[in-house]
Amino acid sequence: MSQKSLSDLNACGKDDFVAALANIFEYSPWIAERAAAGRPFAGVTALFDAMKAAVDDAAPELRIALIKAHPDLANKTHRAAGLTEESNAEQNSVGLDRLSDAEYEAFERVNNSYRAKFGFPYIVCVRRHTRDSILRDFEHRLPNDAATETQKSIEEICRIAALRVDHLVASDDRLKVQGRLSTHVLDTHSGRPAAGIAVELVELSELGVSRLVTRTVTNSDGRTDQPLIGGRPVPIGRYELTFKLGSYFADRGVPTSDPPFLDQIPLRFSVSNPEGHLHVPLLVTPWSYATYRGS
Amino acid sequence: MSQKSLSDLNACGKDDFVAALANIFEYSPWIAERAAAGRPFAGVTALFDAMKAAVDDAAPELRIALIKAHPDLANKTHRAAGLTEESNAEQNSVGLDRLSDAEYEAFERVNNSYRAKFGFPYIVCVRRHTRDSILRDFEHRLPNDAATETQKSIEEICRIAALRVDHLVASDDRLKVQGRLSTHVLDTHSGRPAAGIAVELVELSELGVSRLVTRTVTNSDGRTDQPLIGGRPVPIGRYELTFKLGSYFADRGVPTSDPPFLDQIPLRFSVSNPEGHLHVPLLVTPWSYATYRGS
Amino acid sequence: MSQKSLSDLNACGKDDFVAALANIFEYSPWIAERAAAGRPFAGVTALFDAMKAAVDDAAPELRIALIKAHPDLANKTHRAAGLTEESNAEQNSVGLDRLSDAEYEAFERVNNSYRAKFGFPYIVCVRRHTRDSILRDFEHRLPNDAATETQKSIEEICRIAALRVDHLVASDDRLKVQGRLSTHVLDTHSGRPAAGIAVELVELSELGVSRLVTRTVTNSDGRTDQPLIGGRPVPIGRYELTFKLGSYFADRGVPTSDPPFLDQIPLRFSVSNPEGHLHVPLLVTPWSYATYRGS
Amino acid sequence: MSQKSLSDLNACGKDDFVAALANIFEYSPWIAERAAAGRPFAGVTALFDAMKAAVDDAAPELRIALIKAHPDLANKTHRAAGLTEESNAEQNSVGLDRLSDAEYEAFERVNNSYRAKFGFPYIVCVRRHTRDSILRDFEHRLPNDAATETQKSIEEICRIAALRVDHLVASDDRLKVQGRLSTHVLDTHSGRPAAGIAVELVELSELGVSRLVTRTVTNSDGRTDQPLIGGRPVPIGRYELTFKLGSYFADRGVPTSDPPFLDQIPLRFSVSNPEGHLHVPLLVTPWSYATYRGS
Repeated sequence: MSQKSLSDLNACGKDDFVAALANIFEYSPWIAERAAAGRPFAGVTALFDAMKAAVDDAAPELRIALIKAHPDLANKTHRAAGLTEESNAEQNSVGLDRLSDAEYEAFERVNNSYRAKFGFPYIVCVRRHTRDSILRDFEHRLPNDAATETQKSIEEICRIAALRVDHLVASDDRLKVQGRLSTHVLDTHSGRPAAGIAVELVELSELGVSRLVTRTVTNSDGRTDQPLIGGRPVPIGRYELTFKLGSYFADRGVPTSDPPFLDQIPLRFSVSNPEGHLHVPLLVTPWSYATYRGS
Repeated sequence: MSQKSLSDLNACGKDDFVAALANIFEYSPWIAERAAAGRPFAGVTALFDAMKAAVDDAAPELRIALIKAHPDLANKTHRAAGLTEESNAEQNSVGLDRLSDAEYEAFERVNNSYRAKFGFPYIVCVRRHTRDSILRDFEHRLPNDAATETQKSIEEICRIAALRVDHLVASDDRLKVQGRLSTHVLDTHSGRPAAGIAVELVELSELGVSRLVTRTVTNSDGRTDQPLIGGRPVPIGRYELTFKLGSYFADRGVPTSDPPFLDQIPLRFSVSNPEGHLHVPLLVTPWSYATYRGS
Repeated sequence: MSQKSLSDLNACGKDDFVAALANIFEYSPWIAERAAAGRPFAGVTALFDAMKAAVDDAAPELRIALIKAHPDLANKTHRAAGLTEESNAEQNSVGLDRLSDAEYEAFERVNNSYRAKFGFPYIVCVRRHTRDSILRDFEHRLPNDAATETQKSIEEICRIAALRVDHLVASDDRLKVQGRLSTHVLDTHSGRPAAGIAVELVELSELGVSRLVTRTVTNSDGRTDQPLIGGRPVPIGRYELTFKLGSYFADRGVPTSDPPFLDQIPLRFSVSNPEGHLHVPLLVTPWSYATYRGS
Repeated sequence: MSQKSLSDLNACGKDDFVAALANIFEYSPWIAERAAAGRPFAGVTALFDAMKAAVDDAAPELRIALIKAHPDLANKTHRAAGLTEESNAEQNSVGLDRLSDAEYEAFERVNNSYRAKFGFPYIVCVRRHTRDSILRDFEHRLPNDAATETQKSIEEICRIAALRVDHLVASDDRLKVQGRLSTHVLDTHSGRPAAGIAVELVELSELGVSRLVTRTVTNSDGRTDQPLIGGRPVPIGRYELTFKLGSYFADRGVPTSDPPFLDQIPLRFSVSNPEGHLHVPLLVTPWSYATYRGS
């Protein structure tokens, strides 16, 4: 999908409007149709609220049909049969196309148990999650009753839709769907930002292999030129952020032990709020370090 | 070898003295013979100094013979042919009997390159090292000239001997051959020592598998009942010390995020001084932590 | 009073026993008399418990008489008329003989308001307090009813007595009446204890002048040879502990700014548990520092 | 002086230009006259550089005359006789009109010793200093020879002029004459910025009284709405920044001791670079805190 401007969506014919937004909600163009009546929208927030209201006001059968229109997670048959372009990109973004055998089996179990209990697929907004947290979330949700899970499914579907709207529609306002993960290395031995430190962010996985998220180097301000994760939700999950001090102190003529007391410093932490700003700084000398959840 | 008291060694006949100390220096009873003249010794330090003086005063050929009396490291033929009981225990202590293929090959290369250049085996006091640091030490030593390496070999042989003497001879004084690695967990959220934290110390390895050194739990003082490593040299090398906070804070009614920001906290550091006391404490809240090389 | 051994007190005649312990409870030898029946005591704890039991079991009039046998705090008339030697030393220890005018007036008000309400003097174990905390304690206690204050007065009297017993009677066991305040300076710039740092402990006062408690220098272990406060209760109150870095880092060739970012580092904290061990360490580089309540 | 735009100064007649800039260099309109030839200036930086070049290129006698045109610091006779409006404001900004007796005497000594040695007044750009650092700077400079001090005086005069230009002339570019002092309070007990903490910044003085610089409260981001010092040089000197935790933790239901271990937290530090950005954050729990020179 190429991006559309909100003003074009406000100005175009109803059919074009519906066509443009048909897959915001998976295979459910009726939502765009109902929202069309609210045009013109003052911003993308108003547009999304109108679509969400259409879902909230829909009859129970229609809401169940919307839920059932979604594919199973990481399901090879579904993938072969054809997901929407959007579903495909979303599932790939979290690595559901590259699962380990153990993960693949775990996802199969999840899909089957959930569908067996509720009669509809297990739906989660995968862009807000890691593979581990999808499986963990499932453990929390399976014991729920059908009413709760119907509601939860709709909420997840709206989260998916919000990200699709944010991606598709250009507007002066933005939906609050993006988070940020940043770092900062302060050399408290010299009282200055630490430049030139290689930094590596890895998503940890219990059943599969850990996955490199990004690799970068601190700039003269001790920060990274781009946030470690930005412009998208920060997936819920466990991470390891490693700072490779290597010869940083030795290069500055600082006496260290041989081998140096500190070389690679791993910080292991979890993300719980995908839309928040999580700042994880490092204060470091050759003999000590500290970190904290900053903001 | 069963332990002997220094007073017995001072009182017994010369033959018994030499027999008791014959293998302090590998297959070289002449050292004990020469030291015997110095009896009675005021302490184990004086005894060891006398043996060391015998080595230092020996003719060059004898010193080379002493060096050549040592086995190659991790050499299967030597092992089959029979190491001294002491060599065997020492090599096993550092895991030289359980090498990965890559490590085994690396040790072969080390032995062969070194022997090819110097005509005698590569000797290092393995109880003061990890597998990685033995290989790293080799890289530093191979470029040396023969005189330097003869001297270095004698120094390592004396370190081996000192540990054997410390193990064998009971005396009021002790040789300074033991180090200590300790930790302490302070919960700065409640201002109290953190009790009940599972702690795991792993020796990191580049070519082989990382090896669990010890697993323990903090006591009511936030310390461990026994040092993580004590009563022996702390092997030079890289380590990861992991603190498993798990439900520590949740159990105390502290609000945390879901999943908790901190769960398992790894501290990665190197040991450079086997005979020193290295203290690696953790100051921790649910949202921050700090460590430093203490004493 | 010169110190007595518990064995002598167990062995001597009853009159000597009572004479020796007559002033453990202010002007109230009847308590020692009643406790005498319990001889021989296995330890000083048993002796003190017997005296405390005598107080607890005494008739209400006798308990009130015990309370009334105590002098007003910092009262010049009482001082002129003669306190027991013990009361005098105790009041001087907390500086009640060197009050500022504002403090003197505050103590007068305290004594008078309290006596007016309850008909007996305001009693507090002054060795466990600073001047500020005595006044603060009074604010908490004045609103109480008579029964509560009778009980509180007895408790304070027993604390006074415990300190007098601890001072007077030598025994293998000790009463738990002593606390400790200690510090430790760790130079995390060099990864070593910081030796030679001048340290000054001052008791802060709101109405009077702040009072120097001790001035010392860190030793090679970064600690002080003696605890900052030890062998006695650590008085409840507010303190400022100042570390004079001065030229510490410059002397070690460490580049600093001019003037240096850190020179004198004050830590301001309160003591709340006089019998506990409070450890207040400093982790410091030329550009950062940290402290925490340790143990 | 009311502010002028650079474009007006570029466009006006030469006499008006000189009149407007006559006192940028104390009583020395010749500097503006010489700089006038360089019009039009692309920015205020170019304007200032032209004036500075006029000073650098001036004959030695003229440079000495410029130096001698400056008043003594804190000199009552000079003040009565009339300083330029600019000098007056500058001297008052650093409190030279409100000196303690000891400070007044110290400044007299400084002026007299310096003038006796060099034959011209002791000049320093007071807006970049505290009273203490002016006196400290003098101790460093008095031993210098005349050539060095002539040069130093010219440098200080140029710093004074730069601040006057920055104040007087509006332009798209700015001279780099301003620094910033900021803080940030992070509550690492809850993992959130600490809002509502009263903060007080005091300039410390050895001879006079310490002087309150600002008093403010942290906002919801744990920062202060305005920098502690901003829009001007941060005067070289010693400061104490006090954070009044008071009931911050108790109000949030956090168990603390009675009295709380931490109440008022003073950070004492020095400023050495008036044009830099000095960030002094506080990481705090009820039982620990840390600070560092940030950026």
